[in-house]
Amino acid sequence: MINQMKGSQSMEFENAPRIISAVSVVGPKEGEGPLGDCFDLVSDEAEFGEDTWEKAESTMQKEALQMAIGKAHLEAWQIRHLYGGDLLAQIIATSFGGGDSNTDTPLFGLYGACSTCGESLTLAAMAVAGGYADYAAAVTSSHFGGAEKEFRFPLGYGNQRPLSATWTVTGSGAFILSAGGKDAADSNSTEDISGGAYACGNTPSRCSAERHPAHFGLRREDQNSTENGIIVRGATPGRVVDMGVRDNMNMGACMAPAAADTIYQNLMDFNFQPEDYDRIITGDLGEIGQRILLDLMKEKGFDISKQHMDCGIEIYDKEKQDTHAGGSGCGCSAVVLAALILPKLETSEWKRVLFVPTGALLSKVSFNEGQTVPGIAHAVMLESHS
Amino acid sequence: MINQMKGSQSMEFENAPRIISAVSVVGPKEGEGPLGDCFDLVSDEAEFGEDTWEKAESTMQKEALQMAIGKAHLEAWQIRHLYGGDLLAQIIATSFGGGDSNTDTPLFGLYGACSTCGESLTLAAMAVAGGYADYAAAVTSSHFGGAEKEFRFPLGYGNQRPLSATWTVTGSGAFILSAGGKDAADSNSTEDISGGAYACGNTPSRCSAERHPAHFGLRREDQNSTENGIIVRGATPGRVVDMGVRDNMNMGACMAPAAADTIYQNLMDFNFQPEDYDRIITGDLGEIGQRILLDLMKEKGFDISKQHMDCGIEIYDKEKQDTHAGGSGCGCSAVVLAALILPKLETSEWKRVLFVPTGALLSKVSFNEGQTVPGIAHAVMLESHS
Repeated sequence: MINQMKGSQSMEFENAPRIISAVSVVGPKEGEGPLGDCFDLVSDEAEFGEDTWEKAESTMQKEALQMAIGKAHLEAWQIRHLYGGDLLAQIIATSFGGGDSNTDTPLFGLYGACSTCGESLTLAAMAVAGGYADYAAAVTSSHFGGAEKEFRFPLGYGNQRPLSATWTVTGSGAFILSAGGKDAADSNSTEDISGGAYACGNTPSRCSAERHPAHFGLRREDQNSTENGIIVRGATPGRVVDMGVRDNMNMGACMAPAAADTIYQNLMDFNFQPEDYDRIITGDLGEIGQRILLDLMKEKGFDISKQHMDCGIEIYDKEKQDTHAGGSGCGCSAVVLAALILPKLETSEWKRVLFVPTGALLSKVSFNEGQTVPGIAHAVMLESHS
Repeated sequence: MINQMKGSQSMEFENAPRIISAVSVVGPKEGEGPLGDCFDLVSDEAEFGEDTWEKAESTMQKEALQMAIGKAHLEAWQIRHLYGGDLLAQIIATSFGGGDSNTDTPLFGLYGACSTCGESLTLAAMAVAGGYADYAAAVTSSHFGGAEKEFRFPLGYGNQRPLSATWTVTGSGAFILSAGGKDAADSNSTEDISGGAYACGNTPSRCSAERHPAHFGLRREDQNSTENGIIVRGATPGRVVDMGVRDNMNMGACMAPAAADTIYQNLMDFNFQPEDYDRIITGDLGEIGQRILLDLMKEKGFDISKQHMDCGIEIYDKEKQDTHAGGSGCGCSAVVLAALILPKLETSEWKRVLFVPTGALLSKVSFNEGQTVPGIAHAVMLESHS
């Protein structure tokens, strides 16, 4: 089977697209965590000025997308495609969020559970690398309140959480991708790109503090360069992997086999060793999922313990924030990518990263009907060129 | 705004991909309708041998996908990407259906409400036309029982339905797209394509009758041809259009403005008149939505009354089947495409069709929270070359 699969699950972009802007918008709990100073916008309150969790999530997504467009020095209409998704039933956070705010732009609605950030980046990269869009946007989000309501118990119950449970991140990440290579540079040079910024394109009134030490956003000269910047070199979209796990309070165990499958396939397809990556970063396996992933990869012949990082483990302070196994949600990997991973690629502290958002495929209906919780993981290969 | 948008919302494929196989699987009610003889598989019972509506929908999707792969004379592993979605929360019909059955293939999970068939075909076409996949599959489904449970009332209530309501189609459509042009022919010639068929690739045991007068499936010589077949010439992915309609029992009114927006944009982008199409076929506007669409298009300066058809109106016999305004659901447009539209393109009775699945973006949460029901419509331009 491996021979048949080899080279077939991954894509390598001839004309690798570039990520020209990235924005993270989070709630107060995430702002109090270890990465608090790295986010573009930290809200004082988790409601984001709205009266429901769902609308709060939509508002968060709108802010992230608009800020990302601003940081890229583009107008909304220049974004040809929007690839967006979230965790809610019928992805209403996106329909009423990014999809609704950017009304000139066609919306491709996505659902890949917490892997959706990887799915959206992959499709946006395919769109710009294939010449279908000069610029494409990818936006994903999750909200603790909305996710608990959607998947678990009403918050008012004060339901006790097992230590294997993760805490859904209240956050949204938005990314703008541009065609790479010479054509893109030619095309860019005709755009009105005035000034450049590591600072935000917008100055949102709801931002509780100026916490912008290392915002990711390309300077004009970088945007026009054919060489510099962060490129999406390739992608390994994931398969549904069902190992029969049924515990929806242990998402890490549900998703780890899918993460191992995708990472292994990526290493095989590109003929890489783990050392070829500075980091292999999963989305939200948490501490239990991380241990399972490392074991599974060892069984497959690869020790990735030196390279592995997990966004869910990075985003909260486990001791002080009582978040048990770590953070989770579509927003988790998205905001850590914008706030931590891309800045380190931009400064070339890391040269190549495999970013692997991980998703647990369930609904409350499938869970209540006794179905398993399969996993899926979409890997995106990011490289720094400077 | 039109100038800015012009040419930007649509895509025209240089190397137009071909639809090399299509399958429709439906429930008994659809089998009793006017198109009953045209479907590939009609189940005797809506449960498809399962004990829940959700599992029934997954099974239906698996059957459709496997039959479509068989009809294309391919093995499952040759499908490089699967683009799939459905109406259920967290698209569980797909996660446990097409996504789970074809375990060698990466899954891009989609949600575009009832427009998902258009979204999946667009992305599959982009993937093969862009050289990312030799073969890509698009699969979508809906189930009356599952949809009523998901969006409305338990079936046991015997809730009365207003005449503006539509009836969710129990059905799944699956399509295999192949790269077009010379490269594809070269590639195909190395494949083991033995024999060819208008008949099904599989002979499913659950098929209640042999009802296969005009099944769509290319003969071997057609598959290897660079000229013949049905191509996806282009696509106009849709934007979220919110006209403030809030009536979830009148989906046609919710979706018609989005359909008008996408069709108008398509005509503008390609500099077409309605007469340039043999048919302009919306997904599931039903009778009320159709009237609104025709009016809106007239306001925009186009009379499409001669060309317009709606899959939701075609699939049921309104008088005999008590389906009120028509059929709806992701499965509606998908099975009508496979059973009615593609065969007419294959015989060149129609030369060019604009296929426009339409979706209403809501969940029971967004509806109960007083949100509007925005629409979205993804148009796919199909041409017959023989």
